[in-house]
Amino acid sequence: MTGSKAEIIAAVDEALGSLLPKEDMYPPEIHRAMRYSVFAGGKRLRPLLVISAADIFAVPLKHALPVACAIEMVHTYSLIHDDLPSMDNDDYRRGRPANHKVFGEAIALLAGDALLTAAFATLAGAASSCFPAETVIELQRELAQAAGTSGMIGGQVVDILSEGKAVDGQTLDYIHFHKTAALITCCVRSGAIMGQASPEQLQTLTGFGRKIGLAFQIVDDILDVTGDEKLLGKKTGADAGKQKATYPALYGLEAARKKAAILLKEALECLKPFGPAAENLKELARYAVIRNS
Amino acid sequence: MTGSKAEIIAAVDEALGSLLPKEDMYPPEIHRAMRYSVFAGGKRLRPLLVISAADIFAVPLKHALPVACAIEMVHTYSLIHDDLPSMDNDDYRRGRPANHKVFGEAIALLAGDALLTAAFATLAGAASSCFPAETVIELQRELAQAAGTSGMIGGQVVDILSEGKAVDGQTLDYIHFHKTAALITCCVRSGAIMGQASPEQLQTLTGFGRKIGLAFQIVDDILDVTGDEKLLGKKTGADAGKQKATYPALYGLEAARKKAAILLKEALECLKPFGPAAENLKELARYAVIRNS
Repeated sequence: MTGSKAEIIAAVDEALGSLLPKEDMYPPEIHRAMRYSVFAGGKRLRPLLVISAADIFAVPLKHALPVACAIEMVHTYSLIHDDLPSMDNDDYRRGRPANHKVFGEAIALLAGDALLTAAFATLAGAASSCFPAETVIELQRELAQAAGTSGMIGGQVVDILSEGKAVDGQTLDYIHFHKTAALITCCVRSGAIMGQASPEQLQTLTGFGRKIGLAFQIVDDILDVTGDEKLLGKKTGADAGKQKATYPALYGLEAARKKAAILLKEALECLKPFGPAAENLKELARYAVIRNS
Repeated sequence: MTGSKAEIIAAVDEALGSLLPKEDMYPPEIHRAMRYSVFAGGKRLRPLLVISAADIFAVPLKHALPVACAIEMVHTYSLIHDDLPSMDNDDYRRGRPANHKVFGEAIALLAGDALLTAAFATLAGAASSCFPAETVIELQRELAQAAGTSGMIGGQVVDILSEGKAVDGQTLDYIHFHKTAALITCCVRSGAIMGQASPEQLQTLTGFGRKIGLAFQIVDDILDVTGDEKLLGKKTGADAGKQKATYPALYGLEAARKKAAILLKEALECLKPFGPAAENLKELARYAVIRNS
């Protein structure tokens, strides 16, 4: 394998640092704002998923890094925009003031826009020196699909429009699969695309990604009810306060916990055909679901 | 040439209609919001620039269309975000209520995000069936550069941070070249890239684009002082109200008019080496600068 989890996170941080415009580049306000949220102590779950999936196909770490960073940029942009007053109106993120509380709403909005743009610049730039042009375009199509209205944005739209409403299981599944699982699935699919995986392998990893993505979101919702505010770096109970559609709200905590455990088990089973090559991805799946922050 | 201006605009509208998700696609709110602003009666100056530049190199209209549409999506996203209360706080755009006045701030924000994402999806999708993969990646790099913090977003940041402040000529030039001229230059450069232009030809068109882009913004600022509100579809005097840095504010109306005329003349001279093949691009340049709305 390419290194320990801590080593890979360090490599991701270094790559993000060199891919993003420097803080003092004009106009500095926007570059500071972008870096503030990118280096805000995130778990780097998405880059780790990209790299661990690519590792199954022996894609070198340094080739997978730009793609991993591009997805982390998209994830970070979505958090910045999500926290804005007109959206979730969250003042804190990972124990620190939200981007707009530090840089103001206008710069935060533009920092999100800039990170989304930088993600595609990274694929067309750094990633394109590692892979054939056709592969790069496939990666871009994948990311655009996962991030757009057929993926993450679609999920956010329904999430916001559902606030304060009675939501059925089908709508809740739509929100979770799109808001969270789409980008997580994109991570493992991108690893497979870089590795020239067969259609069957891609299919298998897609199934794994969807299960882990859904489990991850359910655990997020459980932690919003039962978690430790200090470990989470944000106030709990936010979902209930906003009458958000969540798994625990609809099915209860116990059923939510059971569902997450079943999804994790099924996800791990998906990886069987890959044998020991998928060991890191398995470990990561456990980490994504069995966590307290 | 590929058709009259009206015919090309009709082709652009049709292409945008088929590239964007249908209104009734779930969740419909976001697709309605995207289409509301894309089909809000814009001049389609940017798509026309793309297509006219591509036409110099005999790129077929139907190949240039997806690229033209991708840039129009980026332009539209920037308008939606620009109008938001935390940015320019404009209630009207092209004579109609701004996106957030119709769909609410959250959906407007997401519609902008979705259009930016759709632009890159369009390049990786529809455009990639018209050009070699390497060309598509070059187009993406070009667009990401023009739209990001080294281009449009950089200009918007400085524009916003300069509100209410005394701004010197250098800062004003920075704002205009980045906020407006960067994407307009990207239009003509993209046409050249599709047409496999030589480095010299690309350089020449870059010069043309920068001049026309700057002239276009100066005329915009002049119209905000002297224009007809009915023709413009928005209130005039908005820049002065926000103490915006503009050419007329810094140099006076007469000097601004002269500057725009000189830039147009210089831009047209840039196109001489292309002979009659650049006739449409020349006409478009005149239209962009000599206008009343």
